[in-house]
Amino acid sequence: MQALEQAVLEGNRRALARLITLVENEDTEGRAVLDVLFPHSGKAHLVGVTGASGAGKSTLVNSLVKEVLTRNPEKKVAVIAVDPTSPFSGGAVLGDRIRMREIAEAPQVFIRSMASRGALGGLARATQGVALVLDAAGFDLILIETVGAGQSEVEIASLAHSVLVVEAPGLGDDIQAAKAGILEIADILVLNKADRAGVEATEMALHTMLSLGYAMAEDDEKQWAPPILKTVATEGEGCMRLAGMLEEHAIYLHQSGEWEQRDEKRMQHLVQALFEQQRSRDWQQMLEKAKTREILRQVTRRELSPYRAVERL
Amino acid sequence: MQALEQAVLEGNRRALARLITLVENEDTEGRAVLDVLFPHSGKAHLVGVTGASGAGKSTLVNSLVKEVLTRNPEKKVAVIAVDPTSPFSGGAVLGDRIRMREIAEAPQVFIRSMASRGALGGLARATQGVALVLDAAGFDLILIETVGAGQSEVEIASLAHSVLVVEAPGLGDDIQAAKAGILEIADILVLNKADRAGVEATEMALHTMLSLGYAMAEDDEKQWAPPILKTVATEGEGCMRLAGMLEEHAIYLHQSGEWEQRDEKRMQHLVQALFEQQRSRDWQQMLEKAKTREILRQVTRRELSPYRAVERL
Repeated sequence: MQALEQAVLEGNRRALARLITLVENEDTEGRAVLDVLFPHSGKAHLVGVTGASGAGKSTLVNSLVKEVLTRNPEKKVAVIAVDPTSPFSGGAVLGDRIRMREIAEAPQVFIRSMASRGALGGLARATQGVALVLDAAGFDLILIETVGAGQSEVEIASLAHSVLVVEAPGLGDDIQAAKAGILEIADILVLNKADRAGVEATEMALHTMLSLGYAMAEDDEKQWAPPILKTVATEGEGCMRLAGMLEEHAIYLHQSGEWEQRDEKRMQHLVQALFEQQRSRDWQQMLEKAKTREILRQVTRRELSPYRAVERL
Repeated sequence: MQALEQAVLEGNRRALARLITLVENEDTEGRAVLDVLFPHSGKAHLVGVTGASGAGKSTLVNSLVKEVLTRNPEKKVAVIAVDPTSPFSGGAVLGDRIRMREIAEAPQVFIRSMASRGALGGLARATQGVALVLDAAGFDLILIETVGAGQSEVEIASLAHSVLVVEAPGLGDDIQAAKAGILEIADILVLNKADRAGVEATEMALHTMLSLGYAMAEDDEKQWAPPILKTVATEGEGCMRLAGMLEEHAIYLHQSGEWEQRDEKRMQHLVQALFEQQRSRDWQQMLEKAKTREILRQVTRRELSPYRAVERL
């Protein structure tokens, strides 16, 4: 085990892949790994990449990483591709991997797919664990790609230092992000597929919604106004500007003190997730007791109200 | 308070709206309301309606309810429209309400929007509470419309007796439901906007994915094979068949004993949600303690690993 950890700190990729699997499993060994590697973490720039299905996130990540490596060939970059799994999504995951094949061959790039069927909280927990390992292993930039939907927007904001929200024209009759509520967490808005019809309308709508959001968020006086960058990821267009903007955001975070704030928030979120995982195990243990099952049966028979049931438990 | 409850049981709509607000607030009064009304619940057919943004769920709900009332004018129908809220989604909620304006005028129809910024678990909890009140108030059919994304598919399956998953052609380069993983929970698949180009391809893809899902789900031998119904909700096309199919599913559930099973699962889920809410309050209380904050600071400084932090807490 110690040899494995040493190998990871020295940049051994196979050792890294094995450690990540241990951490994903969340068993005793995985916990031990995190305990040992944790003090080495805290240097990487964690970037969340989110947006609706069909916005071209994987292609954008591929082009962005190529651009980052062009600017600085020494940089070590990792990609965590998170997929809310279903028996059906095997194809989608495979498709994502194909879209990233260009960067997958670069020696300083490490790509990891995470497909967890568990609760969203569980996914965030495992993602944080994997990010910590990659951070400790010396990756400078870690991109976490998720399908931005439902509750995950809150989660990704607590996972990353910078959040890219990816939009594209014509994904539905509304702008997807507006309904899912992910615009608020964007540090950089990427309008991908900018060569498509309808891009002007989408851009205008994004501008309007952003300014509306700023008008409503009176309580926090942010100094960083999220820019809207147009890209055509399949051609790499706009990705140089995006790579530069990400660096600018990192500098802004450090100078403003927000980096530390987000780091603190991230750690608090992780500890809370682990705490709730423990509680959830408590619930599972309770479920196995005959008394709990009898109380639940009384609720189903409408003999006991749900609140009273919680009191009894 | 007792007068209010009596009024609700007698069908007073304003009293109903007030009680629902109390239940949504989840305060002492809301709990008391649920305790009193709970024994009167357990008769309604709860139907979840989910699917990607842009699939036309609200329009479908509007047309479906019209059809249900044509078949049986005595039926009392309620719609709970759940929206993962953002400062930006006011427009979307308003849009949904406009799409349902036809049924909103019918005296036997009650529509309630729920826009909660809280955690998804909180949303499910509140939705269950509201559904229980409507159930106790004598509504025969309760439609719960949610944006199907991320984790909510698991939640909606534990909220409803029947689940409609709504798809439409051309919502992205994948079928949205496949990525979000909601096909597995569909009792009835609705392919809306069936007059649009590409409907054949989408239908074929749905058939393929459904059969794939069945091949993989070897462990449970379901007798109900989810049908795929094509609709053009704006024209009401296919909605008569859909209304009939919903009735068929209710009959199937009763005859197979699945109705009771789902009801049991639903109650267990609600009690668990309330239990976890209690735990979450515990966490908030802990956060206020100086000792907890010091432990979290140690984690941020990488002096204490997250797992050790949970142990200390």
